[in-house]
Amino acid sequence: MKNEALQMAKGVRDFGPAEKIARDKILDTFKIVFESFGYNPIETPVIERQELFASKFGIGQESEAMNETFKLNDQGGRDLVLRTEFTVPFARYVGMNPQLRLPFKRYQMGTVFRDGPIKLGRYREFWQCDVDVVGVSNPLIDAEIIELANEVFQRLGLAVEIRINNRKILNAIMDYAGVPEENQISVIISIDKLDKIGIAGVREELLAKEMSEEMINKVLSAISIKGTNNELIEKLRDMIGDNGGISEVDDAIKNTISSGNIVFSPSLARGLAYYTGNVFEVYLKDRSRLSSAICAGGRFDEMIGGFIGGGESFPAVGISFGLEAIFDALRLQNAEFESQRSVVEVYVIPIGNVPIKTAFEYCKKLREANIFADLDVLSRKTGKNLEYASSYGIPWAILLGEDELKENKLTLRDMLSGEQEKLSFDEVVAKLKK
Amino acid sequence: MKNEALQMAKGVRDFGPAEKIARDKILDTFKIVFESFGYNPIETPVIERQELFASKFGIGQESEAMNETFKLNDQGGRDLVLRTEFTVPFARYVGMNPQLRLPFKRYQMGTVFRDGPIKLGRYREFWQCDVDVVGVSNPLIDAEIIELANEVFQRLGLAVEIRINNRKILNAIMDYAGVPEENQISVIISIDKLDKIGIAGVREELLAKEMSEEMINKVLSAISIKGTNNELIEKLRDMIGDNGGISEVDDAIKNTISSGNIVFSPSLARGLAYYTGNVFEVYLKDRSRLSSAICAGGRFDEMIGGFIGGGESFPAVGISFGLEAIFDALRLQNAEFESQRSVVEVYVIPIGNVPIKTAFEYCKKLREANIFADLDVLSRKTGKNLEYASSYGIPWAILLGEDELKENKLTLRDMLSGEQEKLSFDEVVAKLKK
Repeated sequence: MKNEALQMAKGVRDFGPAEKIARDKILDTFKIVFESFGYNPIETPVIERQELFASKFGIGQESEAMNETFKLNDQGGRDLVLRTEFTVPFARYVGMNPQLRLPFKRYQMGTVFRDGPIKLGRYREFWQCDVDVVGVSNPLIDAEIIELANEVFQRLGLAVEIRINNRKILNAIMDYAGVPEENQISVIISIDKLDKIGIAGVREELLAKEMSEEMINKVLSAISIKGTNNELIEKLRDMIGDNGGISEVDDAIKNTISSGNIVFSPSLARGLAYYTGNVFEVYLKDRSRLSSAICAGGRFDEMIGGFIGGGESFPAVGISFGLEAIFDALRLQNAEFESQRSVVEVYVIPIGNVPIKTAFEYCKKLREANIFADLDVLSRKTGKNLEYASSYGIPWAILLGEDELKENKLTLRDMLSGEQEKLSFDEVVAKLKK
Repeated sequence: MKNEALQMAKGVRDFGPAEKIARDKILDTFKIVFESFGYNPIETPVIERQELFASKFGIGQESEAMNETFKLNDQGGRDLVLRTEFTVPFARYVGMNPQLRLPFKRYQMGTVFRDGPIKLGRYREFWQCDVDVVGVSNPLIDAEIIELANEVFQRLGLAVEIRINNRKILNAIMDYAGVPEENQISVIISIDKLDKIGIAGVREELLAKEMSEEMINKVLSAISIKGTNNELIEKLRDMIGDNGGISEVDDAIKNTISSGNIVFSPSLARGLAYYTGNVFEVYLKDRSRLSSAICAGGRFDEMIGGFIGGGESFPAVGISFGLEAIFDALRLQNAEFESQRSVVEVYVIPIGNVPIKTAFEYCKKLREANIFADLDVLSRKTGKNLEYASSYGIPWAILLGEDELKENKLTLRDMLSGEQEKLSFDEVVAKLKK
């Protein structure tokens, strides 16, 4: 059965031209925004040593995560894995390059892998795009990260809400409510669900976890206060005091220029593993379109230093853009988003006895004018060629017959309207450049 | 031992900013040339099913190649591999998308993997960049592929020689010399080494393979003829006759516009597996710099159809650019090639009591003018900041003190010359845009 070959691995995808062109546009936007903010590109390999991602280095990779890691061996029998994310390799890179001048700002975009269950929107191979800066403990740089996220989504045309909270605030709420140390993580996991299950739902969960009425009331009063960001900051400061977390949120918000989209959300927990300060999650303003976060990050001041060892401090903060979710958001918002089926701007059709080489020469001139050109080399009939160009959504065609050659002109056809006119080469370029 | 974590898998690499910026420039050049020639991007996954690459589909993957393929399993126990190249996944893609309009021109760039021995310039994870067109049997399109390669190397500033031969010519030489069917592949493997071991070396090898003197003389006379491309074509046509191969070479050369770099090389074999017609290899003109091919390809008219089955014909031709070799070539030619250590164009330094937020605002305005800006958020002394900017090779610095704010000016410093001048924001932009 030959066609056994026509199958893919589970949970992976092909992207044909229309999807890939649209995805590349998003990646290009990331790249230009990341670089304009001073983040430099690096590339770490897909294949890493298993030890790097294993939990024994205490970097917050949980064992379930390790279960979802693709494992393989090389010919030397070494235990390897496919990377599951970029933060751990970034920590390795920083550790292996002690000559790096701090602050070091880098971005990395590429595929990461998880051998997990396949659900809607969950893949085994997917793109992640991370920016991180190491060497700055000042939360002013957190403001820059928020500004960068703002800029990305503004350029993509997505209306978003950027939620901010701080791990220290969650700790302070726990202390304020008198939640015993050993129950704090479990309680935080419940309050992180506020958005999904509401106040009543969180209360129910906390009751099931055998928290006292008094603790629960205190926790809920802290996470359910209402008001502007400034009001929340003040009320919360009065209620639970400031162990540093509230000031860090305040500093980040105050120093963000485009702060209009920021929402201080005291219930946001954003993972429990390695975050130490401010944490962010970005959602569509219209969450009915897509309820999950499309971008998230935070401060992880302990992870890199703990990973490298030696006692040196490597404060860090970063944010990760999920290409898949952002692509889905853009597609939901704009059905035209992946409608470009070809990069070709003009399809050159030699007619009759016009030699293909002449068509090649015109294509070369068009490309020199930065116009993406393709041509027919199959000597198909004009109608067939126009139908072909149309099937790829190519906006223009050039008809190149013997008459045109004699007159040193080209017939330019608008593929949408069907209108044609005879123009000089320079006129064609001027028209296509518009 | 924490620092066990600071290790990578064997044969893989990190690319820091300087290398990644330089590599991205090459990839950007590929992308713009490929697209301007009408090739559309697609993306197939890193992970494929083992059956796809296994030799049982008769697509010319040899078993040694399968030994050098990274194998892994998913949680469902399926046998998977990491892709070793892009042609097999392309064939799968064509087979799984019967709605595709032919000709279909696509490019794909990304990492491929081989679990082979590690030698100089051989890695286990490396980038490959392929263009292929399926649905055109006419060798005119081969001319376009050559033109595309020419354009890539011209834009990269590499002087190259594009060698062309045709698999049918090799067959015709075998018939002309009377080499028995069962010895032909072995003889072709020897003559492919002409370049490396010379005529005497090839003769020795063929003697060792117990070819007759007469056969050897005939083979050597055919592959060692000298002259211009046209002379070679004529002499060879007279000597061995034309079974189609010589005309295909002739057509490809004649229809290439920038044909000055093309060298017809009757000894070129370019793999024995799936090529059916014209084959190409691109070398640096100055081979003393780098003796191996930096780009190669050819026509494979049988492979995709054989792979898909069903009797439909899928003539195809393509070429593959090895990022690693091309990067090495550029680095050998120009020591400055990877000298850009940062994408940042200007480093903004707030001085004294100037609030960071003001520096953020200037950065935002600079970025809006498409100038890549970074800034100090650590309140370091100016000298330290200048030294930091200099360590990253950032060409400009902006000093933003209280005086400047009062005058609504910025002090722009040329980091190379150390010259400074006070300018308005618009003057700064004009200067940096130059």
